[in-house]
Amino acid sequence: MIGVSSDRFLADLHILRSFGASGVGKGVVRRAYTDADIGARKWLVERIAEAGLTAQVDPVGNVFGLAEGRSVLLGSHSDTQPEGGWLDGALGVIAGLEIARAAQESGGPPVSMVSFQDEEGRFGAITCSAVWTGHLPLEDADRKPDADGILLGDARKAMADMAGGFVDPARFSGFLEMHIEQGPTLDMAGEAIGVVTDIVGSRQLRITFRGRQNHAGTTMMHHRRDAFQGLAAFTTALNERFRNVVTPGTVWTIGRVELHPNAPSIVPGEVRFSVQWRDAEDDRLERMEQIVRDLARDCAEERGLGLTLSQVGALRPVPMDPRLRAALADAAAAEAPGRWRDMPSGALHDASNVAAVLPTAMLFVPSIGGISHAFDEDTAESDLVTGLRVLARAVATL
Amino acid sequence: MIGVSSDRFLADLHILRSFGASGVGKGVVRRAYTDADIGARKWLVERIAEAGLTAQVDPVGNVFGLAEGRSVLLGSHSDTQPEGGWLDGALGVIAGLEIARAAQESGGPPVSMVSFQDEEGRFGAITCSAVWTGHLPLEDADRKPDADGILLGDARKAMADMAGGFVDPARFSGFLEMHIEQGPTLDMAGEAIGVVTDIVGSRQLRITFRGRQNHAGTTMMHHRRDAFQGLAAFTTALNERFRNVVTPGTVWTIGRVELHPNAPSIVPGEVRFSVQWRDAEDDRLERMEQIVRDLARDCAEERGLGLTLSQVGALRPVPMDPRLRAALADAAAAEAPGRWRDMPSGALHDASNVAAVLPTAMLFVPSIGGISHAFDEDTAESDLVTGLRVLARAVATL
Repeated sequence: MIGVSSDRFLADLHILRSFGASGVGKGVVRRAYTDADIGARKWLVERIAEAGLTAQVDPVGNVFGLAEGRSVLLGSHSDTQPEGGWLDGALGVIAGLEIARAAQESGGPPVSMVSFQDEEGRFGAITCSAVWTGHLPLEDADRKPDADGILLGDARKAMADMAGGFVDPARFSGFLEMHIEQGPTLDMAGEAIGVVTDIVGSRQLRITFRGRQNHAGTTMMHHRRDAFQGLAAFTTALNERFRNVVTPGTVWTIGRVELHPNAPSIVPGEVRFSVQWRDAEDDRLERMEQIVRDLARDCAEERGLGLTLSQVGALRPVPMDPRLRAALADAAAAEAPGRWRDMPSGALHDASNVAAVLPTAMLFVPSIGGISHAFDEDTAESDLVTGLRVLARAVATL
Repeated sequence: MIGVSSDRFLADLHILRSFGASGVGKGVVRRAYTDADIGARKWLVERIAEAGLTAQVDPVGNVFGLAEGRSVLLGSHSDTQPEGGWLDGALGVIAGLEIARAAQESGGPPVSMVSFQDEEGRFGAITCSAVWTGHLPLEDADRKPDADGILLGDARKAMADMAGGFVDPARFSGFLEMHIEQGPTLDMAGEAIGVVTDIVGSRQLRITFRGRQNHAGTTMMHHRRDAFQGLAAFTTALNERFRNVVTPGTVWTIGRVELHPNAPSIVPGEVRFSVQWRDAEDDRLERMEQIVRDLARDCAEERGLGLTLSQVGALRPVPMDPRLRAALADAAAAEAPGRWRDMPSGALHDASNVAAVLPTAMLFVPSIGGISHAFDEDTAESDLVTGLRVLARAVATL
């Protein structure tokens, strides 16, 4: 057993939230490569050195705390959404720091830790773990713009004084990421730990219905080709058609809708919208895609609408490594008997990238009310400590 | 019979479209109080004087061409939408000019004409006919902002050198407005003239459904309170519930929809939308309002959504004056036998305001393809001339 200090762990978590503190509850604004983010990473480098680990910051700003020799890697990310919670990825980073530090103090096993950069998508989701694992070539990453048109290649110059070379993934035996659940399942069940079975896959289509923009007073109903009415019918029918295909764990969302010209007195001539769905099985994702495509075509034909349809994202489900997952489950059963469960991760994580190069697993702690990506995201400190202890116990058995 | 010149009428219509010509087809960009609009009004004042009529521009920019003594008033508006057609209100203005001019030349009857200002709603729909008829006090009009925050009171200063006093409505015996239909009814029926029975009334509600903004991957379907799903269900159900209440002439529109935060990976926490409906009977408008309110409440309750609902507009239907309407119908039967019909106006017009102070009627000519408020709005010149002749014949019989 690695003798972690829950007090030191919680104290560091609270210090980390002072970098970019929003002033609203425990909320944090710490976008990748901003002063707040870089300040937090410099603070982390000091803690790593203090713990007797070797700090190494790679060219894109991923911060590693390296133990000697081959080791397990623990961590997550310390950047946040534009309106972020204090835990999110920070939790996994500080848990990794505490366990690596405690292991160092007690003379082993060797444990390394990492804080990945830009998990939250200033330049695209899970950007810098994608660079580290080779999914995303550095030159492609450098050309990615943020919402203001700033390129990653320019933004990372603010960390140039800290940057060394890339860390070789081969020095690690596996990766474990602790994270808040970001959903209400554990909180509603009164449970403390979720052991992740799979990170679900997702697909997303961007669909446009083109009707005829017209005067809302002079165009009789039977002369209309109303793009929004097409979307309303599509949305209602999609819920019906999915019914025979989905599981209780499948989700789908129409989250973005844009009408043109979007005026109360004009029959909408065009509507553009997103349809996104997620599931742990790629076959099901494929069947759902066929339903979306068929239904969009049916709705468009029935109402004389033009249709454009393009795929903007497809991520395959990522199963967790059975050995690491079993280690987490055994540790959860010991630390939180009767208060843990196996569950999929509905959200994307750095672990999705890392799983391609290292055996990878994840564990969740509850999100109060299921709230995340918001200033009022929170988790009971007792649950944070339980998560730390489960992770430490699992590491010790590897 | 007043001896109108169709050539002179068409020539003036084409000259008028050179003020603010969009360069796209016959399209025009001539927003109220812009240089193009004021240039057109100065040109109109010259034509009025040339015709031996008295030009009078009132403080808000309505341009009158006044015959001696008590007279009928003909006209419409010469401002356009941000992307306008060449006819729209300009047609009624130039028809009024031609008939007043021809009547002046042939020694009677006295006919006056008008071009109202800001019918197209830079500062609110039918703004300056509302000022003229006393619906809208001048000091209230002056405080109305346009989309850029410019106040009408400041915008009208650009016409201060032209402005005189208000014209007394009591000097007119009635008002006749010729306009394009702005819908496809006449065009599809191959007819030349519509004699307006009523300007339909309209009501509009602004509705907000508030759900819970949440992560689209981690929030299971049965935990969601998705505001957009509420709107989709509302839209579909509204079509059903209206079915037993509406006539073929009733229209309803959801033209404006705004999701928050409007992102593909976030369950919509809020949707704000407009519901507008129009009909010639106020009782029916009221029954429809009750259906909208009841259904919004049902949808919100069923899905655990918060609901805010506010009325943003209610216009009573305006019936046309029976005597003037009969004069137009008789003239249409003579000039376009078998090619005219009685019909409601689904759009609002300056006539809606004027009807409160003068006996008022309207006639329509076809809109090709029903297109209006667009650069490609058009009408066959033979139909424009038929409209002119119907209006001239009706005026002669009053």
